[in-house]
Amino acid sequence: MLNLLTENFYNNTKTMKYSFKNDYSEGCHPRILERLIETNLAQQNGYGLDEYCLEAEKLIQQKINNPKAKVHFISGGTQANLIVISSVLRPHESVVSAFTGHIFTNESGAIEATGHKVHGVETADGKLRPQDIQEVLDVHTNIPHQVRQKVVYISNSTEIGTVYSKKELQELSDFCKGKNLYLFMDGARLGHALTAETNDLTLEEVAQLVDVFYLGGTKNGALIGEAIVIVNEKLQEEFGFHIKQRGAMLAKGRLLGIQFLELLKDDLYFKLAAHANQQAMKLKAAFMEIGCGFLTETFSNQIFPVLKNDQIEKLYQNYDFYVWKKIDAEKSAIRLITSWATQDEIIERYIQEIKKL
Amino acid sequence: MLNLLTENFYNNTKTMKYSFKNDYSEGCHPRILERLIETNLAQQNGYGLDEYCLEAEKLIQQKINNPKAKVHFISGGTQANLIVISSVLRPHESVVSAFTGHIFTNESGAIEATGHKVHGVETADGKLRPQDIQEVLDVHTNIPHQVRQKVVYISNSTEIGTVYSKKELQELSDFCKGKNLYLFMDGARLGHALTAETNDLTLEEVAQLVDVFYLGGTKNGALIGEAIVIVNEKLQEEFGFHIKQRGAMLAKGRLLGIQFLELLKDDLYFKLAAHANQQAMKLKAAFMEIGCGFLTETFSNQIFPVLKNDQIEKLYQNYDFYVWKKIDAEKSAIRLITSWATQDEIIERYIQEIKKL
Amino acid sequence: MLNLLTENFYNNTKTMKYSFKNDYSEGCHPRILERLIETNLAQQNGYGLDEYCLEAEKLIQQKINNPKAKVHFISGGTQANLIVISSVLRPHESVVSAFTGHIFTNESGAIEATGHKVHGVETADGKLRPQDIQEVLDVHTNIPHQVRQKVVYISNSTEIGTVYSKKELQELSDFCKGKNLYLFMDGARLGHALTAETNDLTLEEVAQLVDVFYLGGTKNGALIGEAIVIVNEKLQEEFGFHIKQRGAMLAKGRLLGIQFLELLKDDLYFKLAAHANQQAMKLKAAFMEIGCGFLTETFSNQIFPVLKNDQIEKLYQNYDFYVWKKIDAEKSAIRLITSWATQDEIIERYIQEIKKL
Amino acid sequence: MLNLLTENFYNNTKTMKYSFKNDYSEGCHPRILERLIETNLAQQNGYGLDEYCLEAEKLIQQKINNPKAKVHFISGGTQANLIVISSVLRPHESVVSAFTGHIFTNESGAIEATGHKVHGVETADGKLRPQDIQEVLDVHTNIPHQVRQKVVYISNSTEIGTVYSKKELQELSDFCKGKNLYLFMDGARLGHALTAETNDLTLEEVAQLVDVFYLGGTKNGALIGEAIVIVNEKLQEEFGFHIKQRGAMLAKGRLLGIQFLELLKDDLYFKLAAHANQQAMKLKAAFMEIGCGFLTETFSNQIFPVLKNDQIEKLYQNYDFYVWKKIDAEKSAIRLITSWATQDEIIERYIQEIKKL
Repeated sequence: MLNLLTENFYNNTKTMKYSFKNDYSEGCHPRILERLIETNLAQQNGYGLDEYCLEAEKLIQQKINNPKAKVHFISGGTQANLIVISSVLRPHESVVSAFTGHIFTNESGAIEATGHKVHGVETADGKLRPQDIQEVLDVHTNIPHQVRQKVVYISNSTEIGTVYSKKELQELSDFCKGKNLYLFMDGARLGHALTAETNDLTLEEVAQLVDVFYLGGTKNGALIGEAIVIVNEKLQEEFGFHIKQRGAMLAKGRLLGIQFLELLKDDLYFKLAAHANQQAMKLKAAFMEIGCGFLTETFSNQIFPVLKNDQIEKLYQNYDFYVWKKIDAEKSAIRLITSWATQDEIIERYIQEIKKL
Repeated sequence: MLNLLTENFYNNTKTMKYSFKNDYSEGCHPRILERLIETNLAQQNGYGLDEYCLEAEKLIQQKINNPKAKVHFISGGTQANLIVISSVLRPHESVVSAFTGHIFTNESGAIEATGHKVHGVETADGKLRPQDIQEVLDVHTNIPHQVRQKVVYISNSTEIGTVYSKKELQELSDFCKGKNLYLFMDGARLGHALTAETNDLTLEEVAQLVDVFYLGGTKNGALIGEAIVIVNEKLQEEFGFHIKQRGAMLAKGRLLGIQFLELLKDDLYFKLAAHANQQAMKLKAAFMEIGCGFLTETFSNQIFPVLKNDQIEKLYQNYDFYVWKKIDAEKSAIRLITSWATQDEIIERYIQEIKKL
Repeated sequence: MLNLLTENFYNNTKTMKYSFKNDYSEGCHPRILERLIETNLAQQNGYGLDEYCLEAEKLIQQKINNPKAKVHFISGGTQANLIVISSVLRPHESVVSAFTGHIFTNESGAIEATGHKVHGVETADGKLRPQDIQEVLDVHTNIPHQVRQKVVYISNSTEIGTVYSKKELQELSDFCKGKNLYLFMDGARLGHALTAETNDLTLEEVAQLVDVFYLGGTKNGALIGEAIVIVNEKLQEEFGFHIKQRGAMLAKGRLLGIQFLELLKDDLYFKLAAHANQQAMKLKAAFMEIGCGFLTETFSNQIFPVLKNDQIEKLYQNYDFYVWKKIDAEKSAIRLITSWATQDEIIERYIQEIKKL
Repeated sequence: MLNLLTENFYNNTKTMKYSFKNDYSEGCHPRILERLIETNLAQQNGYGLDEYCLEAEKLIQQKINNPKAKVHFISGGTQANLIVISSVLRPHESVVSAFTGHIFTNESGAIEATGHKVHGVETADGKLRPQDIQEVLDVHTNIPHQVRQKVVYISNSTEIGTVYSKKELQELSDFCKGKNLYLFMDGARLGHALTAETNDLTLEEVAQLVDVFYLGGTKNGALIGEAIVIVNEKLQEEFGFHIKQRGAMLAKGRLLGIQFLELLKDDLYFKLAAHANQQAMKLKAAFMEIGCGFLTETFSNQIFPVLKNDQIEKLYQNYDFYVWKKIDAEKSAIRLITSWATQDEIIERYIQEIKKL
């Protein structure tokens, strides 16, 4: 992976380069701005007790058909992960994640900073299976000299673009219940997962199969915001304290409530994710046409084509993206991410470039 | 103090009540929304490496006349406090605060959750003086059985509306340097402090006298955002890691950069704070006219008039505010906060009510 | 208080000075050494699963007439305090202590280092009363912006030598149950408390009135060791993990088990404490005879006579002790501590010195 | 690995079984008991400021020929690991360990509980090499989204009985200096490493090549105790605070000082370790004679012969040990540990049993 620091300093707006580096390069969907303008001067209570947050919670409860679920809005994914996990675990308990899991490598030790071990597991496709977790349990039987596994962390879609099938999530859910483990789904890209061409899960089913999850806004058209949905009533108690203690309780929580209200009231949320996926699939098709392979087969808004170094150089002249993984001396896999904001013209233009390779 | 939970659930927008409960009841200054619209579709780097954050940092460096200062934008005050303090302290070091300091009682143990003790000090007016800190040092000489004091936390304006004079801050700064303590200013309401009628400090002087401080946006016209300014170069090292680890690094950092750029480019920031102060001073004058006293004498956007219970009842019929402190069986002090958004008509209408008391 | 660091470097064994500085200046009661010799080569399981720890647990269960209590042996008081408190509290919960409580000032931030706030309360005599705790609860109603109090920490005897009466402990216990607070007694000097001339509590009653407590060995004839007794079954679960995680699980736990077995099998533990108390009371009587007053009235093994500076100088020529608190320009209170090892000759010799004052 | 809990409850002293389960099944070397008796009633300062600790520090400084090194005595290995690592690291920094490292799996998350990530590395023989660490550094370049590696943790002898050669430690030391990493050696069995038949390192060389290490007493004839030696002056500052804060500062530190003084004054420490190694090597030779292989080739006091299940059953009738790892359906590796207390008769008797296999 390239060093994001140097990469990030590369300022793509001063050039003509279009960026496929991530799905948070733009601001937010225009309807959100309109709604912010309309509501701007209405006085509201602070700390997530405004009308918009309360309505947005009701809306999510309806969509998952569970009025007992509790919903909390916070600003980002790492924050959601550390608050949920540290609120659930006792000091000697740990969390299991895929090696590719965001909490394992990309949060600067955020979970460990709350006092808990994260077990990394090698996976083929970024998805955890019961056997992966069982192997961790099997080598942690030396009580009380080893930590107790208590939370299983999964991402859907995963950090490498794959999505869980209903069967896979059902098996994981059954396994966790049987082993007295909590199942937590990082849904920073849940919209993309649930609108992927191969997906057979509904939001309601996700809510039935996990103990807690979140609906990501930041990567799907919001300025900021993730909606944490706590389904398991045992985990709901006093959650507000944890949000406040970690510095995640916005004085103007309205900013979060308004956005989710707008994104969810008519499924704009899923339309935007579906759009991102479709744009990625067009690129995938174009790469396949020229006989190029992929690091992992994906159906959401991230693709990882494997290209020759000179092909990468060519594409890099007019487009910005990450070189994800070196395959060998001649080849590397690159990562291309599309978003709610990726226009057709861009995709068409890029496909022409691919054909030229 | 009333229980904010029950209070907050009281939904003031469904009634005609106008709220003086806090300075974050509205959205943001319209110019910020305009700027968000203009910049919305420009692609930018994530994590605070966008053009707006970089420009806003330069702008602040110019305003404090210190190009070596480092600026980081995050979403809220509790977050700023816990990140700054935990990044500075070693495990056995502690922070000194007034009992009224936000970190001491109103952050749900956020500082302790990062592993550090907060020493509370009784003060007359919410402001720390060298003698207050010396008294803490004097009873912590039993090395290594007691924590080592290393950071002094002050708020300007304070949580009870008072402001530091140049002489007071100079003395505190000299004392801290002499005792090898870092001086950290919580500037959630720094704009209000620096535009208070009694203020004799400039922003540049504040930056010269403290090691680290922040400029609050949330309570002064922004949707969210505080600008942490690290003046002491020893404290600048690797600060980004701490922001990320605490879940405070926004993917769309642009949201913060754009707001501070807009607020600071032509001193809108100070104009908004001055407006809030003026509105509060008009109310103060009206209360003085009817011979009412105050819990503390303030010149910023918070006032604490002491009223008879029946007078409080009357005002409460059409206005929302907190009853701050019970004085005796007949009297209590209430807290009224004005903001950048408090219109003249509201103030005039309220003054009429005061006169009727 | 004098600076213990410099004080401690003063090496009293190279002079003829006898030390009243604390009750852990000597090794251990000879019977413990005999028992260590007898058992030395017997092979035993590690980590507190040896025969001696298991028998000592049974013995304590019998003494408190509660076979369901769980007993864990660790090496010291600060360790006992941090493990018990951090195992009980969730991240947003806090503990209430007297300002004089060991956890508040003398453990180098050990409790905060586990993430929890310690509320300090001013007391007349080092003992907490329901009203003291109620006052803390009263100013922490702003949910979820303030921490939730969950544990009440008391010491018996206290750090200033006072002891709880049955009535006082009963009231505290009732109050805590009513407020859903756990009551934790630091018993580093519990032997001294229960054998004090004014005491009317039994060990069994202590175990009935608190949720968890410990029996101190270090200050009462053992080489090291405190026996944590968890009475409340809710707090017993998985406690071993916490001991291990904090580095407190001795590979040779037998060292702790053997000592408590020897101290408790025939009440040697209480005989040693009673001896220490009696020696202190002889000194107290002598000081009273010469009309000297005391900082607090005590009946256990610590006394705090208030003396003129020149009198302190005289005593200091041949004896080592701490000057505890300056009373005024002419007077200070000193602290004298006696122990299981303080011989009659020493006491008699010292009484002669007192009479000469 | 068998579940140590159930294993441990198996009480070997009630049977004729001799235990090879670990090297802390007995008390301590008789000379230590004699010394405890001699010194028992001498009054000493508390908290490690007694004469014995001060002398023992000098003795260690002489043995490593470094008068500037600082020595601290604490009770156990997990405690030493967590205190050293948490005192060195800033919040965003991490430690690298072999998967077999004690801190990675056998300390119930003690390091993570202090807020830091432990990176596990696969190794052939429990020893870290520069390339292993470089691979961790290579995948953590995404600043500041990933933790910063700062400490390298190694054990000598390792948890699986192997020892570092001078060349290996020199290479590791050079690498760490070059990468600005601190090298920390867990010496719970350092005596055994330095007296192993294949060892070519001296204690002085170890002290020159690492930044901090400890000399283990618990597993080499002491009742309890590890001597932490801080060579790097940057890491010495205020270390006492960390010991106190973690509850590791014994009131009667004398207990630790006396033991190390006795073990080190005439190299008893190394004689005991050499004895343990020799006894293990005799068993190793016997197993080799019957053509049995080993999980890892060791020259210290731990051996891991691979046996058929029925052979294990036979040995288990009269001896206690751990079945370490299943090799296949027919075979497993067992762990046998000898100690300073393992007598020749036991070894001879056991060798007869091996021959019968």
